Amino acid sequence: MTSPPGGLPDEADAYGRILLDAAEGRGACEIVERDDGLIWGGDPSDYFAPFRRWPATERRAMRFVRGRVLDVGCGAGRVSLYLQERGIDVAAIDESPLAVEVARRRGVRAATVASLTSLPAELGVFDTILIARNNLGLGGSGSGARRRLLATLAERTTARGRIVTDSVDPARLPEDRRPLRDHRYRIRWLGSTSPWLRYDMRPSDDAEALVEGTAWRVRRVLDDGSPRWVVVLEKSGQPAGSAVSDRPHTRR
Amino acid sequence: MTSPPGGLPDEADAYGRILLDAAEGRGACEIVERDDGLIWGGDPSDYFAPFRRWPATERRAMRFVRGRVLDVGCGAGRVSLYLQERGIDVAAIDESPLAVEVARRRGVRAATVASLTSLPAELGVFDTILIARNNLGLGGSGSGARRRLLATLAERTTARGRIVTDSVDPARLPEDRRPLRDHRYRIRWLGSTSPWLRYDMRPSDDAEALVEGTAWRVRRVLDDGSPRWVVVLEKSGQPAGSAVSDRPHTRR
Repeated sequence: MTSPPGGLPDEADAYGRILLDAAEGRGACEIVERDDGLIWGGDPSDYFAPFRRWPATERRAMRFVRGRVLDVGCGAGRVSLYLQERGIDVAAIDESPLAVEVARRRGVRAATVASLTSLPAELGVFDTILIARNNLGLGGSGSGARRRLLATLAERTTARGRIVTDSVDPARLPEDRRPLRDHRYRIRWLGSTSPWLRYDMRPSDDAEALVEGTAWRVRRVLDDGSPRWVVVLEKSGQPAGSAVSDRPHTRR
Repeated sequence: MTSPPGGLPDEADAYGRILLDAAEGRGACEIVERDDGLIWGGDPSDYFAPFRRWPATERRAMRFVRGRVLDVGCGAGRVSLYLQERGIDVAAIDESPLAVEVARRRGVRAATVASLTSLPAELGVFDTILIARNNLGLGGSGSGARRRLLATLAERTTARGRIVTDSVDPARLPEDRRPLRDHRYRIRWLGSTSPWLRYDMRPSDDAEALVEGTAWRVRRVLDDGSPRWVVVLEKSGQPAGSAVSDRPHTRR
């Protein structure tokens, strides 16, 4: 197993260790610790769920995926496997080396240890960048980091490039497990502890403001009232009336 | 909800909080932290499992239950519900007020907040004291505490009294989650943290030595090679050849 630049060192790869233990049937839960000591955990089986068990909004988001796809934070490969099975050209990245290991074992053909901020040049450009369950609003905490990231993503996408990403409306989560912006969070499992992270979860009303002044504009917001909502971004240069393919890859 | 002597205060009742969240469908995992920072978690659904899903050794242990029963550490009421449904007179205790709350809601008729060391006199005496999944060998860490506990249990049982209890052979657990005697452990969930506990898990070969010099002797050891083994103790005063009812309450 390699840990190239962009890859978490083993002792910080708690998330990947959880996926590996779950994949190998040892039983695991995703332990989340808040910086004031509050702690909880969740069943990691969601990361392995087949398409039919995804939340409706996530299933619907797949209709907006087109062309060559980058699956950012692929985890156990749930989304890449779905797209790959439909003949879509998808490259998967995760900064967790163990997650990439699990994704490969589960059949993801092009999985690489990398993060969005250290995206290897040889991965090329994409028509769709998919950032599912990133839990960081649009990829960064604070508007500076978010703008820089959106500028990078503009460079790594074609003229018809899209970003399909999601966030969680914190007001729709149980009060006792609601990620708060003034706290940091980390994942723990056995001897591994992730770096502290800030969550920047937003309500869907914030979508327009999040991309204001960037190369991107909101093409569509998918929000069915459940905690997680999806936003489809397109480059501002594209004609506003450009057709959006809303057909599913498979009809169910 | 009352928290009489013997009951954990709310902020220490992490175990009960986990059972309550699981019972109310909020999703929970039992987070265990070792005093050197190692941390893991498990699915609490085992605490709610019906008889048919119990490990074979636990199912077999039920054949040794007779007369009036005390279910020590009843948790979500799994064992008490099984016995109660078979018409057995069972009193349940747990030092977790929230566990007792969950057990009552699930239908356990006689559930009381108490621990073995603060057993209310009004509960009377028992023919069988059942200590399932106590994870403390025979009820205490260190031979002094164990002897005192076994003496107390002798006073609270009839002449034909039995103790049915279990332990886990640590060598049969995964190495990375093996409870070690030189460490302390605690349960955590959200803002609740249990007191630090020492586990005194033993192999079944230790059963005789654990009761040596007490009012109890080993009547039967049930060990099928799985991690958890069961021991049936009887009072030393009873004739060695006394019949042990080995018939199940129900035939399956």
